[in-house]
Amino acid sequence: MDKNDRIYGLGETLGTLNKRGKKYRFYSTDDPMHTPEKEALYGTHPFMIVDGKNTFGLFIDFPAELIFDIGYENINTLKITVTGKNFDLYIFENENKNSIIEEFLKLTGTPFLPPKWAFGFQQCRWSYPDKESVNNIADNFRKREIPCDAIYLDIDYMENYKVFTVDNNKFPDFPQFARDIMKRGFKLVPIIDPGVKIEDGYNVCDEGVKNGYFCKDKDGKDYVTAVWPGLTYFPDFLNSTVRNWWGNLYKDFNDIGIRAFWNDMNEPAIFYTPDSLKEVSDILKQNSGNTDLGIEAFTAKDKMLTMANNRNDYKSFYQKDESGNIINHDDVHNLYGFNMARGTAEGLMNLDPEKRYFLLSRSSYIGQQRFSYIWMGDNFSWWDHMQVHFRMLQSLNMCGFFYTGPDIGGFGGNSSPELVIRWMQLGAFTPLYRNHSAIGTRNQEPWVYDEESNDILKNIIRLRYAFMPYAYSEFKKSTENLSPFIKPLGFVFETDRAKDAEDQYMYGDSLMVAPVYTPNARGRYVHLPEVKWLKWTASKFEDRNMTVYDSGDYFIDANLNEIPLFIKENSLIVLENPKQYTGEKETENLYITGLVTEESEFTFYDDDGESTGYKNGEYYKINIKISKTETEFDVNVEIDDTEEYPCTIKNIFFEIYDETGKKYTMETKID
Amino acid sequence: MDKNDRIYGLGETLGTLNKRGKKYRFYSTDDPMHTPEKEALYGTHPFMIVDGKNTFGLFIDFPAELIFDIGYENINTLKITVTGKNFDLYIFENENKNSIIEEFLKLTGTPFLPPKWAFGFQQCRWSYPDKESVNNIADNFRKREIPCDAIYLDIDYMENYKVFTVDNNKFPDFPQFARDIMKRGFKLVPIIDPGVKIEDGYNVCDEGVKNGYFCKDKDGKDYVTAVWPGLTYFPDFLNSTVRNWWGNLYKDFNDIGIRAFWNDMNEPAIFYTPDSLKEVSDILKQNSGNTDLGIEAFTAKDKMLTMANNRNDYKSFYQKDESGNIINHDDVHNLYGFNMARGTAEGLMNLDPEKRYFLLSRSSYIGQQRFSYIWMGDNFSWWDHMQVHFRMLQSLNMCGFFYTGPDIGGFGGNSSPELVIRWMQLGAFTPLYRNHSAIGTRNQEPWVYDEESNDILKNIIRLRYAFMPYAYSEFKKSTENLSPFIKPLGFVFETDRAKDAEDQYMYGDSLMVAPVYTPNARGRYVHLPEVKWLKWTASKFEDRNMTVYDSGDYFIDANLNEIPLFIKENSLIVLENPKQYTGEKETENLYITGLVTEESEFTFYDDDGESTGYKNGEYYKINIKISKTETEFDVNVEIDDTEEYPCTIKNIFFEIYDETGKKYTMETKID
Repeated sequence: MDKNDRIYGLGETLGTLNKRGKKYRFYSTDDPMHTPEKEALYGTHPFMIVDGKNTFGLFIDFPAELIFDIGYENINTLKITVTGKNFDLYIFENENKNSIIEEFLKLTGTPFLPPKWAFGFQQCRWSYPDKESVNNIADNFRKREIPCDAIYLDIDYMENYKVFTVDNNKFPDFPQFARDIMKRGFKLVPIIDPGVKIEDGYNVCDEGVKNGYFCKDKDGKDYVTAVWPGLTYFPDFLNSTVRNWWGNLYKDFNDIGIRAFWNDMNEPAIFYTPDSLKEVSDILKQNSGNTDLGIEAFTAKDKMLTMANNRNDYKSFYQKDESGNIINHDDVHNLYGFNMARGTAEGLMNLDPEKRYFLLSRSSYIGQQRFSYIWMGDNFSWWDHMQVHFRMLQSLNMCGFFYTGPDIGGFGGNSSPELVIRWMQLGAFTPLYRNHSAIGTRNQEPWVYDEESNDILKNIIRLRYAFMPYAYSEFKKSTENLSPFIKPLGFVFETDRAKDAEDQYMYGDSLMVAPVYTPNARGRYVHLPEVKWLKWTASKFEDRNMTVYDSGDYFIDANLNEIPLFIKENSLIVLENPKQYTGEKETENLYITGLVTEESEFTFYDDDGESTGYKNGEYYKINIKISKTETEFDVNVEIDDTEEYPCTIKNIFFEIYDETGKKYTMETKID
Repeated sequence: MDKNDRIYGLGETLGTLNKRGKKYRFYSTDDPMHTPEKEALYGTHPFMIVDGKNTFGLFIDFPAELIFDIGYENINTLKITVTGKNFDLYIFENENKNSIIEEFLKLTGTPFLPPKWAFGFQQCRWSYPDKESVNNIADNFRKREIPCDAIYLDIDYMENYKVFTVDNNKFPDFPQFARDIMKRGFKLVPIIDPGVKIEDGYNVCDEGVKNGYFCKDKDGKDYVTAVWPGLTYFPDFLNSTVRNWWGNLYKDFNDIGIRAFWNDMNEPAIFYTPDSLKEVSDILKQNSGNTDLGIEAFTAKDKMLTMANNRNDYKSFYQKDESGNIINHDDVHNLYGFNMARGTAEGLMNLDPEKRYFLLSRSSYIGQQRFSYIWMGDNFSWWDHMQVHFRMLQSLNMCGFFYTGPDIGGFGGNSSPELVIRWMQLGAFTPLYRNHSAIGTRNQEPWVYDEESNDILKNIIRLRYAFMPYAYSEFKKSTENLSPFIKPLGFVFETDRAKDAEDQYMYGDSLMVAPVYTPNARGRYVHLPEVKWLKWTASKFEDRNMTVYDSGDYFIDANLNEIPLFIKENSLIVLENPKQYTGEKETENLYITGLVTEESEFTFYDDDGESTGYKNGEYYKINIKISKTETEFDVNVEIDDTEEYPCTIKNIFFEIYDETGKKYTMETKID
């Protein structure tokens, strides 16, 4: 590498946005401890861009282990190890980074538009284990008027962790319960794991065994591992017959109206196998009575620790491809989550082609943006993981995963009120806005702290909802243009300083977000490249005090309740009054703001938010153009709708700033 | 707490410099994984300063478990839990933070002056296991002309981890080997662990058993645990008889001339006990044959993981105080390392009162600054741990541990060349400058990378040696004035912004260090409070390009080979030509630089660097005063020496800047 080359991409990996200085391994792995030295996480995204002396893109399509050493062993050497011969290497020759991404997405597929509620707030916990606790969460949101669109069901909703079952003791009359809660504006999002509990009389297990749908051991018997339910079989998703079967298992949920899911544990995670458990027992048995093990005590400990997700186990089972060829799982390991998502997506589309679905997957592979979104796995309530959040957000967007996000507030470990506040601010400007935490950790729902913290959190979530028209419009545009919704500053401004400002990013094309991600901070440094910027240290929708900044470096004050936002010169953002949930009521008023020194345009997009009708023209757009004149501004509003899908907006309120910081308010009525 | 109160202190703890937002537990613990949520590390330093509405200091003298919740559970609540009634609470009522520290040190004791070589560079590795490898390290330093003053011996130098033994196979004729290497200017620093291997015929074990020097179980039998050597006994350091015995065990080393040691594992660390090992075996045995454990498999895993350093074990053994009272270890747990250090220090002083000793301890307690220095324990090759480094450095200095530092480059995990370079830059401005790494990790000696990286590292170490006169003089002054050698910016400037600039610190009274601690950085933001500053982006002693800055906020460029340093207006730093090791030759030339707008003074201090003669006046000082006149500078140099200990300096070269950035060079000859 040239000394000044920057390397971008690699999707769901730890480390900096410029990937230099670290080694990355793609072998999808359920590792719940994302410490900085870790090389492999849940997904496999071997697409990168070299930006510098010779700018180009590179994608290696290979489903087994891949290693990228990017200036780790030797500071200026990039070394890629492909552990097999049967791979496709794509080079994207283009000087423009955004064009490289466009070409890459033309090759690997278009990210799909989620239902609009996916841009609302989503509440998760391992677990809300029964009807009462879910209803209690729902009550709290509505009673406190904190907007929320989704409540998740983690593994405890199932009967003994049997996938596609619901525990009737915890959720008596589940269909009625689900319909009731959905009527209140909450989507219910059950978790789905691939591991099928081995149990006679359990239909999923029985069908899979009978039809030979499960992965096999070397002798052709159904391969046994252990995950949440104890001993389980893994469906062989490599095969379309199995995918079709699996996709149809979502029917019961679909019939109730549940079309939102999260596929977990699909690397696939393995806790242990009967063989590996026996191995540890044997070591201890062997040493039984011998207490003077010295350092040898570590051997048993290490064995115990490496029992989960062990490579040897992945090498011990087999899958069957479309043509019936037997393939060692290890050779196609990184496709397991991909094909599970594919089966799920095809099933859901088939079950109700008229309605969008929502699907998160933990494991993923390049191209999966066509079927599912992903979340970033089991992070921790560490401040450092806010950096992982915004870096991974940018890197995943480059790889086609526009809609993504982490567990806000941190999954593992306990969080402090301040951490959750700062993280919820960052999350408000992340497509997937989901607060999630693990069993045994401190609760982090937005009302569990002191009154002041709770107020701040409520206002942040309301701010998120105020941005709904902007986020939904810009996201739609990004899928149309094959241009990431989240962009690094260095993909918009080609200066060294912009490229190195990894802790600031574009959320849509108009807004730069500069989150505060350190404890006890009263502000942060911000780099403003090239143009003028309209600063909003935002605490709530109703307070929209804006200041014009020239390009440069600034320490920006930001109290605990504030996040620094910057609207780019000659671009606009569109807000609305926050709703309680996305489908609560129609939007009638839009609020448009920005700093206009010459001319700026914004296209507002809207549709019903739930159906697939937008694919057939059931949507409308409003093109807004603002031009600076000698003394004030010209505003031009054009409605582009149809009789079948007419515009619902009645008023547009403008709050436009000139370069002196003077605010002009205008209003447009739409009949 | 008031919303704007800042909390300082707590010594060796994770988290920010302002300790708000986290929970801290003092129960000295060997935890090798310093992830951000950890509450307890190796040391116990319950001294804190509240800085804000009501400024005061607080120290709780209590040797058992203490918990400080500083705005973690509730954002504005400070809650201290003392787990017993028998404690002393000291409140320091003073508006001035530095005066609070002075009072605290008057109470708890004065940090002692290390030998001068302790300000040189020190190389460590787990392990350089034999004569050849140590000699090879020494050869590399001298051959490559990279300065170095010490090479450490980690646990593998011992015979079967038996403390106070040397393995004769690995180190044949150890005394001659040691004398040879010391002749070349390297101190040899062996590790000493408290755990005594249980072995008949091993003198330390035999003497301890015979005289009843070991901790006892509830039945009065010698308590058995397991550490490196396998089954061991723990000396009962609470008792002066045991401390005297232990201190005298250093005699063989002392006789060879080895007076530098590091006391490890003295929390005391426990790998397991015969009982706890049996417990895990039993669980697995019980489940033997049952492979369908499901989540229950985690139980055995958890048991295995919590076997080490288990509180139940600490509650299971007993110590005897000076009056012969039996005390449960748990009640005095936090004093174990303290008393081991005390025994060691008294032994070494007794063995040769004329000569200084060097002693690092891993575990520590308030007041231990009188006996030993400490290092920061088993960190990791994570960029985040550079932040732990400079924050802990400031916090430990407040608690009296002026001379301290972490494992530069990181102990656990593999490091990249860039990480080691940036960390070595930070380490160059840290009293203890020791590069250390664990077995099985990538080597990080300063010649293992590519040529460019190696050159950078060599220049950084040489820069460290150039600062020797400054560091030694300022450190001496800090012990005289009971004023920390390392000070947070907020202890010198009372602005909010200075207080929040936790990643900049004063190294002595003249120099502010602003290390680069993020990967792929080409610079960093720096806050310059109140006065003017002379900026030196330092890469080597020979390049001394300086620029004058007004107070304010700046993005300071810093290439990989550079660390931003700032000399405070009207203060001076003193440099010398880098030596190969501290005692190589006498210093004849001093280089003095600074930005003088009115008047500045510096007192250069020197002594023989090794003896305790400085306590009896065997030292000299040079008082340097520079005043700005209309057109240039008045330089005043006063030698304060004696015939018994005369000044060795022959020339002083001045490079003084005025506020326009103009450099004036002057020279003073001393006869």
